[in-house]
Amino acid sequence: MSLIATTPKPPYYCVVFTSEMTVENDGYVTMAQRMVELAEQQQGFLGMESAREQVGLTVSYWQSLEAIKVWKQNAEHLEAQKLGKKKWYSSFALRIAKVERDYSFKAPS
Amino acid sequence: MSLIATTPKPPYYCVVFTSEMTVENDGYVTMAQRMVELAEQQQGFLGMESAREQVGLTVSYWQSLEAIKVWKQNAEHLEAQKLGKKKWYSSFALRIAKVERDYSFKAPS
Repeated sequence: MSLIATTPKPPYYCVVFTSEMTVENDGYVTMAQRMVELAEQQQGFLGMESAREQVGLTVSYWQSLEAIKVWKQNAEHLEAQKLGKKKWYSSFALRIAKVERDYSFKAPS
Repeated sequence: MSLIATTPKPPYYCVVFTSEMTVENDGYVTMAQRMVELAEQQQGFLGMESAREQVGLTVSYWQSLEAIKVWKQNAEHLEAQKLGKKKWYSSFALRIAKVERDYSFKAPS
């Protein structure tokens, strides 16, 4: 299975979350996994891509701004956001963007 | 220095490039470094963030769609795109999106 999200024809939305972590990562992996699981259950969730080296990049895709707003306000997610700021992230940027065009490629096998 | 891009107030644009690589990575690192160097010289380039694990994620930020278009057509970049499809990438998705809102956080030190 490809780890690249399969998304519908634009327009749709993406949330680009870029983070740098503190040395304190206790509980982080469990919480991050739970947030993926929970995001996948949200109405309007389209997919997610993620990688971490010196920075972590997570891009999630959504049908609408409304869906992003509902997810942002999810109670369990709010708790994770609070812990993220308190413990895990030394800095982050979050950007909400409207995907206007996309293009994909698959090598012939 | 933070590896999180410092961007102006929205609106601006981002290009989300998500890729899976083949086993053939000969020449890839040199080319990728050159493309970063070259992108940074482009008019309207605002910053870039990147991480690779199972997938590679590179998000670059731009002042306008026009700046993205000029970069896409850059001769050296065209050559890299061709090699990418021929050798390095088994699949990729490229998404162009307009950043409408952003938010950043820095932990108190």
